Amino acid sequence: METENPFARAGERLDDLQFAGLRILQRPGEFCFGTDAVLLSDFAQVRPGGTVVDLCCGGGIVPLLLWGRGRAKRILGVEIQPAVAEMARRSVALNGLTEQIEIFELDLKNAPSRLGKGVADTVTCNPPYGKAGYSLPGENSARSIARHEILCTLADCVASAAALLREGGRAAFVHRCERVAELLSLMEAHRLTPKRLRAVQPRSDAAPILFLAEGVKGAKPGVQWLAPLLLREENGTETEELLRIYHKL
Amino acid sequence: METENPFARAGERLDDLQFAGLRILQRPGEFCFGTDAVLLSDFAQVRPGGTVVDLCCGGGIVPLLLWGRGRAKRILGVEIQPAVAEMARRSVALNGLTEQIEIFELDLKNAPSRLGKGVADTVTCNPPYGKAGYSLPGENSARSIARHEILCTLADCVASAAALLREGGRAAFVHRCERVAELLSLMEAHRLTPKRLRAVQPRSDAAPILFLAEGVKGAKPGVQWLAPLLLREENGTETEELLRIYHKL
Repeated sequence: METENPFARAGERLDDLQFAGLRILQRPGEFCFGTDAVLLSDFAQVRPGGTVVDLCCGGGIVPLLLWGRGRAKRILGVEIQPAVAEMARRSVALNGLTEQIEIFELDLKNAPSRLGKGVADTVTCNPPYGKAGYSLPGENSARSIARHEILCTLADCVASAAALLREGGRAAFVHRCERVAELLSLMEAHRLTPKRLRAVQPRSDAAPILFLAEGVKGAKPGVQWLAPLLLREENGTETEELLRIYHKL
Repeated sequence: METENPFARAGERLDDLQFAGLRILQRPGEFCFGTDAVLLSDFAQVRPGGTVVDLCCGGGIVPLLLWGRGRAKRILGVEIQPAVAEMARRSVALNGLTEQIEIFELDLKNAPSRLGKGVADTVTCNPPYGKAGYSLPGENSARSIARHEILCTLADCVASAAALLREGGRAAFVHRCERVAELLSLMEAHRLTPKRLRAVQPRSDAAPILFLAEGVKGAKPGVQWLAPLLLREENGTETEELLRIYHKL
């Protein structure tokens, strides 16, 4: 899937997403998207013509996949790391989507004041998973910032998502299972009432490794806890659902 | 499993729990225990010699099963409905366990002041599942009170559990999936840090119908989200785990 391309710089690779003709720049070993981002882009609900803000957008994978799914009118990506935001911008440009997707190099804590409160119909967020202070000294690489709460906390993510959303708008998150109580509590505290919850399991009899959660701003309480998203069949092959999410079915 | 017994009154049935020689009085059509109580008694962690308080104890099923599992030294059951508490007391008596299990006819909001703050190593609670105000007019039967938040809310249950527990003590709840966010948020708010979470699914590919959650008073955050508890195999037979929980294996 690697191709030579004038958009790619040293250390970067241009990958074909094999979906809607989309391609994305990545930096192997430092900054590549994971399954979690792909699952989030499938889980998030976007109404036709809606505006989406993707917080912690990294190299732009969620904005690109959401665009490929064809419902959003406008997608704004927020990324605090200058070099990563710049790479995301080039990915948007090489797909010819600069009119539809805009990448902001921005601390997400400032996103509501900069992009506008209530501007979003949907917010997506694949936040850093690790607790602040858990990364090694001197490890403030792009990879580490994307993985640990060095520059923003989970509370920051939820607060910004809530402020960016219009009343009735939807916020979708993906996170590690160990932080499910924190995330759901923060969502409740910020009026992003949790409405859908889904565990992601390697197999049907295994503990989940990730979860997806959706909140609706100002909604009444009541969670629809979905059947687990299974990644592999018992025989080790990818499940039909995973293949569908990856557009291989 | 029905037997004639001098302990049983009109409308009551004496059931053999087929476990540790235990029997329990029930009132068919009005007050019988469900699978949820059995799952809760298996999920709850009781240290040897510990004191357990079971809130909303109903006919005493959780205290009896916890006793049968053989770890608690003393179990206190709290039940607000006089007739139900009285039936639970007779079930305790007919098992010869009046020294080990004590049933209090008590509003759980008053349980910490009456039984003592910090008295419990473990608290269990199978609360009314329905929201207050959702039962039909005139439906203030024992069944309705046990099923709806007529006399206590989920917040009351969590607040009492937190007050009854010693620092480091564990509270175990079973509830409907739709209320998972509320319960986890309330636990966080009352310093019952959620530490274990488990979905109960009819089958491996089905949405869960119930969940089990354990909090540890004053613990650091971090949830262990367990593999789902599956009730049935694909062919419809009970799973080995369910049979083990029911002591049929």
